[in-house]
Amino acid sequence: MIRVTVFNEYVHERNEAKVREVYPNGIHGAIAQALGGIEDITVKCVTMDMPENGLPQQLLDETDVLIWWAHLAHNQVSDEVARRVQRRVLDGMGFVALHSAHASKPFSLLLGTRSPVLRWRENDEQQRVWCVSPGHPIAAGLGESFVIPKDETYGEYFEIPTPDELVFISWFSGGNVFRSGCCWKRGAGKIFYFQGGHETYPIYYQTEVKRVIQNAVRWAAPTYPAIVFNEARCEQIPPVEQ
Amino acid sequence: MIRVTVFNEYVHERNEAKVREVYPNGIHGAIAQALGGIEDITVKCVTMDMPENGLPQQLLDETDVLIWWAHLAHNQVSDEVARRVQRRVLDGMGFVALHSAHASKPFSLLLGTRSPVLRWRENDEQQRVWCVSPGHPIAAGLGESFVIPKDETYGEYFEIPTPDELVFISWFSGGNVFRSGCCWKRGAGKIFYFQGGHETYPIYYQTEVKRVIQNAVRWAAPTYPAIVFNEARCEQIPPVEQ
Amino acid sequence: MIRVTVFNEYVHERNEAKVREVYPNGIHGAIAQALGGIEDITVKCVTMDMPENGLPQQLLDETDVLIWWAHLAHNQVSDEVARRVQRRVLDGMGFVALHSAHASKPFSLLLGTRSPVLRWRENDEQQRVWCVSPGHPIAAGLGESFVIPKDETYGEYFEIPTPDELVFISWFSGGNVFRSGCCWKRGAGKIFYFQGGHETYPIYYQTEVKRVIQNAVRWAAPTYPAIVFNEARCEQIPPVEQ
Amino acid sequence: MIRVTVFNEYVHERNEAKVREVYPNGIHGAIAQALGGIEDITVKCVTMDMPENGLPQQLLDETDVLIWWAHLAHNQVSDEVARRVQRRVLDGMGFVALHSAHASKPFSLLLGTRSPVLRWRENDEQQRVWCVSPGHPIAAGLGESFVIPKDETYGEYFEIPTPDELVFISWFSGGNVFRSGCCWKRGAGKIFYFQGGHETYPIYYQTEVKRVIQNAVRWAAPTYPAIVFNEARCEQIPPVEQ
Repeated sequence: MIRVTVFNEYVHERNEAKVREVYPNGIHGAIAQALGGIEDITVKCVTMDMPENGLPQQLLDETDVLIWWAHLAHNQVSDEVARRVQRRVLDGMGFVALHSAHASKPFSLLLGTRSPVLRWRENDEQQRVWCVSPGHPIAAGLGESFVIPKDETYGEYFEIPTPDELVFISWFSGGNVFRSGCCWKRGAGKIFYFQGGHETYPIYYQTEVKRVIQNAVRWAAPTYPAIVFNEARCEQIPPVEQ
Repeated sequence: MIRVTVFNEYVHERNEAKVREVYPNGIHGAIAQALGGIEDITVKCVTMDMPENGLPQQLLDETDVLIWWAHLAHNQVSDEVARRVQRRVLDGMGFVALHSAHASKPFSLLLGTRSPVLRWRENDEQQRVWCVSPGHPIAAGLGESFVIPKDETYGEYFEIPTPDELVFISWFSGGNVFRSGCCWKRGAGKIFYFQGGHETYPIYYQTEVKRVIQNAVRWAAPTYPAIVFNEARCEQIPPVEQ
Repeated sequence: MIRVTVFNEYVHERNEAKVREVYPNGIHGAIAQALGGIEDITVKCVTMDMPENGLPQQLLDETDVLIWWAHLAHNQVSDEVARRVQRRVLDGMGFVALHSAHASKPFSLLLGTRSPVLRWRENDEQQRVWCVSPGHPIAAGLGESFVIPKDETYGEYFEIPTPDELVFISWFSGGNVFRSGCCWKRGAGKIFYFQGGHETYPIYYQTEVKRVIQNAVRWAAPTYPAIVFNEARCEQIPPVEQ
Repeated sequence: MIRVTVFNEYVHERNEAKVREVYPNGIHGAIAQALGGIEDITVKCVTMDMPENGLPQQLLDETDVLIWWAHLAHNQVSDEVARRVQRRVLDGMGFVALHSAHASKPFSLLLGTRSPVLRWRENDEQQRVWCVSPGHPIAAGLGESFVIPKDETYGEYFEIPTPDELVFISWFSGGNVFRSGCCWKRGAGKIFYFQGGHETYPIYYQTEVKRVIQNAVRWAAPTYPAIVFNEARCEQIPPVEQ
């Protein structure tokens, strides 16, 4: 059983009628729905306004994959919670960052960048997502490319560390390209970033995007208990017997 | 069900009593045994002296993961068979190269190196295999390090492309280090190289080594049907609708 | 002093008036011109119809960087010459593959792919080349992106090993993206692939493209004598003194 | 001209006679000496007890490569200074972290790890540093391997992101291996970590180690002015003209 927690800052939906119309149950609601009805996945949703930003240690300890959507209010997540997430990832929890979560505190802590520089504009452009890693589990069932009819445009240069695996590159009708599906390992944990999902478009209801999220959850889930590092690690190892 | 084919050149065991004593059923026999009794894995063994080196197209087409052990007679594998293996890997078949298979034709074709340069000596040294990628499925269940009491020593510089993922680095009592567990992707296929397994030692009966091979088979097996590339790929894609 | 050899198959220019008009001195002539007048670079040109395809061992031994342009006649390069190039690269020579040289024998030998699968069409599309690795020497002086007004369209999936460094991703007006500037290391040698340069367009006269080639030559040139690997490498290393 | 700044926390040398004996001019003094007399390199030294930890913005702005040695007092470097270093690296400054600087604030910020987990012990063991990337400029002039007669032992698992380039792997006589020479890119900047250099041994006077540091400085120095990212990056790019 893969235990997924969806974190949403949940600000746009409350403050903007346009967004609420697209996501009446919140973006987290749509993401949870994308993972619903899958027999080996359970989903919990939390929002930023909850105590400890919805992420007390115990919940993280019982989370296999954490999905993060946020945009406006990255600074309202406490440093303590951000570090807690970082540590859990290093110890093996999966982390899936969606869209503007590239600028969230946990993402920056894990990848070592500042709120990453990138090009962007809101221009109703078409995005075509190309697979550059056939055979990668996150691309399973998706074909060579798929179209997101309208999305916010993100463009290179995207100030991220070189991905350990690059799964998708997106083409935007306005002339930009973007590394839109990126994998990294940090410690025992896996991280996936997916660009799609501006709050004003119904992108998380789209079949292909739901499949990406499902695939990402399966890929990021830890496959076995992580090695425990403790003080004993500083002792001498048994002498070499020849 | 993962369909595994084990290829063995099967020369040492026939010509050297010392090796036959260690591997009375051939090295392929020991490897098949390591994978035996696992409910979702089936194993076939072939040897180099069979027609088409034991690897007709049909068998490859029905193989999910090909394991390769060879040492003395790399040149007796035909170029045609080597290219056939290469193509199947690019189309998604897993390939696990053991020990001196680093110098085999399929490995060279896939990785682009000549019979890779490395240091080596037969000196009954202890090998300690360290995991440098906790959380990697090939390291599952193995702990921080394990010892192979005696093995042929392999040492850097090992003339391989930078591994896409480095799982193990080995320490040898005589003063060498070696990247002993390496992953690459080529096309839709996955490749794993594992250093352990000189023919004069009972290494493929060792619990940890058997676990490495089991893990590698699961990791290398294709997870979904590969994308088919055909002529249509040169046509124009549908026009952009704004 | 960096000694560059430019290899051109030189078939299009002889057989097609349209191409000859664009490249009256051959594509090799234009590339040589792009490197001309640089005080620490010397250039020689060879063509495929010369003895040994223009690449006898001695010339390769005196070459620091080999540039390769070919398209129609990859099979007319002998296997022997292709392997000779591969060995020199592994020993430290730089190799710059342009445009359709992705399907050349030396490129395939070095990267382990078959004539790589990719999408393509001739459609007079605009290509915008985006830098995804600011700070990389091959991007020096080029800015965030530059436009090639018309080029043959190449599209993903491009069946290459994951580049060790990805420098450029191209956007094509027809809807495709392409990893158009890729670096790999093989042995002691460096390889750079650049997509731009279909034979019917004057691309190798374009300022930015000339700069890419100049930068690539400097980057690929060996920086010091490569380590020599010889038989002594199999001997025991000096015992550990504690 | 490459402008190098050497940062030393400078605590051991003041508090421990044993260390002061080895480094009477401070570890920074020895490192500066290793870079002395090279015509295109200038060196400044700063210590942690200076105002702003010795690293005001202006000095960083005039630094091409920052070398960092620290061990006991990582927390006495202010968060503000650590972030300032991070930003300068992302904008193109080189960063060379030596020995226990793996646990420094700037290193953690840049690489996204916590004070990285690793094995260690002080045991007067021999370290043999093996080159696994011949042809890499940081390995220039160093041969296949070299010995550090006595050093603190560091061992895997070392909780770092997969290096973009792995240059050295060390063997320790007590049975450990360690990725001891690692390269990363972050933004436009280059980072090199080198393990050698425990404060109680005269390692920074050793010819090979001095060569590593010289090579690392040349490699990490920015090769051209970094691309400037500004607000204009959010505007629309010029329309595609077909």
